[in-house]
Amino acid sequence: MTVIDLNSDLGESFGAWRMGDDHAMLDIVTSANVACGFHAGDPAGILRTLRAASKAGVAVGAHVSYPDLVGFGRRNMDPSSAELIGDVIYQIGALKGLAAAAGLAVTYVKPHGALYNTIASDKRQAADVITAIQAIDPQLSLVALAGSSLVAQAREAGLTVIPEAFADRAYNADGTLVSRRQPGAVLHDPDLVARRMLRLVTEGVVETVDNRMVRIDAESICVHGDSPSAVAMARHIRQRLESAGIKLQPFSLPRTA
Amino acid sequence: MTVIDLNSDLGESFGAWRMGDDHAMLDIVTSANVACGFHAGDPAGILRTLRAASKAGVAVGAHVSYPDLVGFGRRNMDPSSAELIGDVIYQIGALKGLAAAAGLAVTYVKPHGALYNTIASDKRQAADVITAIQAIDPQLSLVALAGSSLVAQAREAGLTVIPEAFADRAYNADGTLVSRRQPGAVLHDPDLVARRMLRLVTEGVVETVDNRMVRIDAESICVHGDSPSAVAMARHIRQRLESAGIKLQPFSLPRTA
Amino acid sequence: MTVIDLNSDLGESFGAWRMGDDHAMLDIVTSANVACGFHAGDPAGILRTLRAASKAGVAVGAHVSYPDLVGFGRRNMDPSSAELIGDVIYQIGALKGLAAAAGLAVTYVKPHGALYNTIASDKRQAADVITAIQAIDPQLSLVALAGSSLVAQAREAGLTVIPEAFADRAYNADGTLVSRRQPGAVLHDPDLVARRMLRLVTEGVVETVDNRMVRIDAESICVHGDSPSAVAMARHIRQRLESAGIKLQPFSLPRTA
Amino acid sequence: MTVIDLNSDLGESFGAWRMGDDHAMLDIVTSANVACGFHAGDPAGILRTLRAASKAGVAVGAHVSYPDLVGFGRRNMDPSSAELIGDVIYQIGALKGLAAAAGLAVTYVKPHGALYNTIASDKRQAADVITAIQAIDPQLSLVALAGSSLVAQAREAGLTVIPEAFADRAYNADGTLVSRRQPGAVLHDPDLVARRMLRLVTEGVVETVDNRMVRIDAESICVHGDSPSAVAMARHIRQRLESAGIKLQPFSLPRTA
Repeated sequence: MTVIDLNSDLGESFGAWRMGDDHAMLDIVTSANVACGFHAGDPAGILRTLRAASKAGVAVGAHVSYPDLVGFGRRNMDPSSAELIGDVIYQIGALKGLAAAAGLAVTYVKPHGALYNTIASDKRQAADVITAIQAIDPQLSLVALAGSSLVAQAREAGLTVIPEAFADRAYNADGTLVSRRQPGAVLHDPDLVARRMLRLVTEGVVETVDNRMVRIDAESICVHGDSPSAVAMARHIRQRLESAGIKLQPFSLPRTA
Repeated sequence: MTVIDLNSDLGESFGAWRMGDDHAMLDIVTSANVACGFHAGDPAGILRTLRAASKAGVAVGAHVSYPDLVGFGRRNMDPSSAELIGDVIYQIGALKGLAAAAGLAVTYVKPHGALYNTIASDKRQAADVITAIQAIDPQLSLVALAGSSLVAQAREAGLTVIPEAFADRAYNADGTLVSRRQPGAVLHDPDLVARRMLRLVTEGVVETVDNRMVRIDAESICVHGDSPSAVAMARHIRQRLESAGIKLQPFSLPRTA
Repeated sequence: MTVIDLNSDLGESFGAWRMGDDHAMLDIVTSANVACGFHAGDPAGILRTLRAASKAGVAVGAHVSYPDLVGFGRRNMDPSSAELIGDVIYQIGALKGLAAAAGLAVTYVKPHGALYNTIASDKRQAADVITAIQAIDPQLSLVALAGSSLVAQAREAGLTVIPEAFADRAYNADGTLVSRRQPGAVLHDPDLVARRMLRLVTEGVVETVDNRMVRIDAESICVHGDSPSAVAMARHIRQRLESAGIKLQPFSLPRTA
Repeated sequence: MTVIDLNSDLGESFGAWRMGDDHAMLDIVTSANVACGFHAGDPAGILRTLRAASKAGVAVGAHVSYPDLVGFGRRNMDPSSAELIGDVIYQIGALKGLAAAAGLAVTYVKPHGALYNTIASDKRQAADVITAIQAIDPQLSLVALAGSSLVAQAREAGLTVIPEAFADRAYNADGTLVSRRQPGAVLHDPDLVARRMLRLVTEGVVETVDNRMVRIDAESICVHGDSPSAVAMARHIRQRLESAGIKLQPFSLPRTA
């Protein structure tokens, strides 16, 4: 039986500000990338999300970021290795602590935003993130962009890597994502997206912007939940996969603390 | 053989700003209260301090604070229970993560500044701190003001409590600290302070501001390291205690992660 | 012809997080209390709000706060006088700068959240806020809770004070607000609220929780815009007042920079 | 009579953390680049520095930065134009407000750290900083790296630009600074540095790392004050220039608010 994981960014409210619909998404996804306070997430709010994830039986990962609340971690920065290693360990540790309080274990790490994009190709910052994970807990998996150099780099370093595809993004012929600055980079038709993801899971391929097929080795699919239509698309993807007999399951089973 | 612990606040630099002389203090104290980022301490700097503590064989505790960098955690705040519980767990978790990267285990929690003073008597916020510690790791000890209501409150809740005395502070006849707003609240003579601490350790008493004796049940002595004269006073206290045959030892032995 | 001002809190988004509907409210109110970055508001977002206020012909005031983003300025703090004076001047200055870039002058100051409540009765912090306003620009008016001791204190110090009433709050017989912890403290019926405000403007009285009348000397009415129903209530109040021939007008006319 | 300005970074303490010796430097320099809270400086501390600058008759400029306290504004970031424009206006406004409270007018802007280096060549971010200055106060001068493309870009936009040289930095043959990553980039001999600066002021040239002469059109010299030896070097430079009959004077006379 074919199995796939669905992951999404959760816990991204901050103080009085709400973002996303964590409760709706916890019924859809199997893995929750939980904000750690550097781009989003205050401790009390993170803990609420973790408790809800625990109830929902969803696996949790540390969604680590550059320290940039006002920029939501979407702006490039050039921290030193010591700074980046420290920041990543700090965030994972904080989330592990809150997860323990919710009776959960953190099972993976997924870098967020600009850090995610940077380490897909920047070997130095990628090495720092790998070093950080190994320093705090080498059992943690790393979720990384399928096809990026990070996948091999982290595996060579000994980490378990979970390559992921993006449900609502167009792909180039070389398996890279079409830049958001290009027209057509983001897909909005839930039915099209669901069909693409079904094909990805069953055949391992995605149709590219120029109507070719590209092989994508993904063990998880990233879906969004930051708007009602995003939640609806995520739900649609899940239903389509389940209707086709695919089993939705976290790549690492959720563990109690 | 009589045994006592010496603790001090470390890791209180922040980014480009230095505070205290962590390396000097790690030769003097047996327990390091390490800042967790809310009143002081950036992750890379905290990690440096933890590695130095590991080398020095000093036990480490989480020096948790209200979220107030600009006020150095010295200003009263009134967080809700959910906020305070979340903040304390987050900080302990972050420090546990960085300590693990340094090969160390965090063995205790000592609240900082305004939070320390508040929970010495505020039962609600005290209960929140206790709840937070038990939620993340009930094996952690709590360092609390000797004679405060927090000592009994935390023990009743099941925590191991380490009551502490302050080396450079004057005491009232009821065992409370003379307020810093009173003249004579802070003692500056290293020799006098060292003699007082020797008597505390050997006889369990401290002379009060009105020349009486008060019983102080302390298992640790807090010394400061935020100026060269503070470091010198701390060193003097240690030497005096050692000369009298007292063994300096952390109340919880440092553990590897 | 009777004239009244309607004020509301605007510019309270922060980075990627949205709060309130500034554009809707700018069609309703005559004065906008604009966040200054300490409880909400990032510079780019504040500037957008100020430009929209400029187009709408709405007067703008500095909505100054304790430095507490994660707590949205709603938590009590005890800054020193030097800290509070500095913080208030800094925020007013920042808003004056952004307003100048939008072609506007800031005409008043309204403290936010916990600071607003504290200085309604705390003379020391009130004096600090007054000192700050006079140090940067003594022409700025201060919006204060009608009936509070702050009104007289600030007038004695030479400031122009605009006492305000709260549209959706119940009043005690002594003219104070019913605490939010009491049932019935917040009113939800737009029609009732609009009738109360009409009576306030025309007769200078409000019906209290125990069905008496209390005199409220208000030159502005605070309305909320943080939810669609709040926006609808604010619109209803405005329409009711206008239907009764009341002129809606800022207490200080908006000025260009 | 030849005239030159000496500028230095001041107001860089933050809360409980001290940096530099503002009082010593205010006796040496003629222009103070005052931190605005984004890389350093809390409002109360900034106000203290501004009051001391007012007493010392030193001109003050806004030392604007990327928002990065923990990185002290030394890390590259890629803010959007809206973000950068907003951030720069906000900081200038905040400093103008605090300066007004100290009876001073801000007369110039000097970007700090990574922002300074970036806009020396990045035209987009440079344009954003220019836009921000013109939006809040086009009378403000801009201090920029002598020889950088920013000098011409800002002058074309209509700003008064003050090109500056760095006293303790080695220069390449093309007039650019030797990168700090190169050996010999920073000069430590106070006497050598003072002689170089005297020649710069009297002849308009600096000796390069490869022993040639390069023309540097500088109207201000940047000196540092972040260590006792830096203060001593700055004092030495001033004395040497004065002994040679050079008049030390701010490029813009300090103005009262």
